[in-house]
Amino acid sequence: MTDSATSPAVPAPIRMTALGGIPAINTGDDLAGLIHTAADAAGLDLGEGILVVCQKIISKAEGRTLALADVEPRAEALRIAEEDGKDPRHVEIVLGESVRVVRRGRGVMICETSHGLVCANAGVDLSNTPGRDIAVLLPVDSDASAARLRDGLAALGHTDLAVVVSDTFGRPWREGLVDVCIGSAGIAPIADIRGSQDWMGRELQVTTMATVDQLAAAAGLLMIKDAGIPAVWIQGVPRVGEGKLEDLLRKPEEDLFR
Amino acid sequence: MTDSATSPAVPAPIRMTALGGIPAINTGDDLAGLIHTAADAAGLDLGEGILVVCQKIISKAEGRTLALADVEPRAEALRIAEEDGKDPRHVEIVLGESVRVVRRGRGVMICETSHGLVCANAGVDLSNTPGRDIAVLLPVDSDASAARLRDGLAALGHTDLAVVVSDTFGRPWREGLVDVCIGSAGIAPIADIRGSQDWMGRELQVTTMATVDQLAAAAGLLMIKDAGIPAVWIQGVPRVGEGKLEDLLRKPEEDLFR
Repeated sequence: MTDSATSPAVPAPIRMTALGGIPAINTGDDLAGLIHTAADAAGLDLGEGILVVCQKIISKAEGRTLALADVEPRAEALRIAEEDGKDPRHVEIVLGESVRVVRRGRGVMICETSHGLVCANAGVDLSNTPGRDIAVLLPVDSDASAARLRDGLAALGHTDLAVVVSDTFGRPWREGLVDVCIGSAGIAPIADIRGSQDWMGRELQVTTMATVDQLAAAAGLLMIKDAGIPAVWIQGVPRVGEGKLEDLLRKPEEDLFR
Repeated sequence: MTDSATSPAVPAPIRMTALGGIPAINTGDDLAGLIHTAADAAGLDLGEGILVVCQKIISKAEGRTLALADVEPRAEALRIAEEDGKDPRHVEIVLGESVRVVRRGRGVMICETSHGLVCANAGVDLSNTPGRDIAVLLPVDSDASAARLRDGLAALGHTDLAVVVSDTFGRPWREGLVDVCIGSAGIAPIADIRGSQDWMGRELQVTTMATVDQLAAAAGLLMIKDAGIPAVWIQGVPRVGEGKLEDLLRKPEEDLFR
């Protein structure tokens, strides 16, 4: 038995740094530039690592918002809103973002989005800006959003970053929310990393971990305080490969819960 | 608007440190002592923070293992094993740990355990020790396990630690596994922390985050390399309150997916 088998290398610590100082985002804002400026002001040189960015600022920058006042609810939205005590304009937007309602009950709509994500309200959040209620929709293609942000940051000198877009989802069976990945660039969403042998040389089953979901959840520990931390820089997580959101989503025909 | 409203305090970085050097665990082992010794050898003084410990070493220390050779499968286990191509002794143990099979299909059994956890195979893992195949069951009461470990560490001078017991679960709709909490001590599992106001002074909905699940997932980023990292020390996450696993589990009558 080699030394490395008896005493495996301990991975280096992981450091997670909250990025504050990013202003309220409006359509067309240059997110990469704002993140670069905020990091600079905080004395952070965003080198190697993974930048986890919350979906809301990406959606806002991309103009994925709708004023509720501009929405005309149709019959199905009116019916559901009546039954569930909701704003019919919100329900109309949720239905528009859904390819299928997976479950409805207890005032909750669990929807499958065009991306294949399954989540409450198809990921449509209401933002109660005084005088103007808006809905914030998921990005059309979060992998592409992540890639654009990654390219923008690289052009500003941050050439060794992966980007994970996170959103806050509920889960079946468990209370409370966790942050999950809804798109990424520069990192494989899934990794076969609990390998072929354990450290005693015995065979282990191959286990695929949802690395990007673990990253999103980890970053969520720093996004909890208020709405002022829309991005977290994670250093020390080895990343390999590339991939796409589809890798992270179970095929409907292989799923036991829809 | 006050300064603190325009420029909220940025939380301090979070640091996560892998704890290696913990030997293979056997029934009756003193986990607190082994963790203390391993930390000491690594030059780590486990001060303030949260220690995330994987379920497997706790179960092994508590003797929650069964040799497959000692298990006599009954008719239901034989039938399921035949249909799904499994070891009937494994299925027998899984059924024994389950109050209900929530779904069975595609060779997978999703079970509700006596704790109220919903997971594959009721959390029963097979460990292929040469010459002796054993099943590792979940602790009988993971909150109590966490509390015992926390007390043991406190007695060794580590008086400012919370303990989270983690296990690796699959999820509906998403590929890959993530680590979640199955028991804790010294920390509230759920926190109402996305608060009453956002940083622009606008009202936000109260959002309950599953803090302990985010901690387990974060620690999982360091447990991925091999089986040699059964514990991760997380510094810098504010923790409040106490609670119990029940707080983290949705009541069956409020769940849309069982």
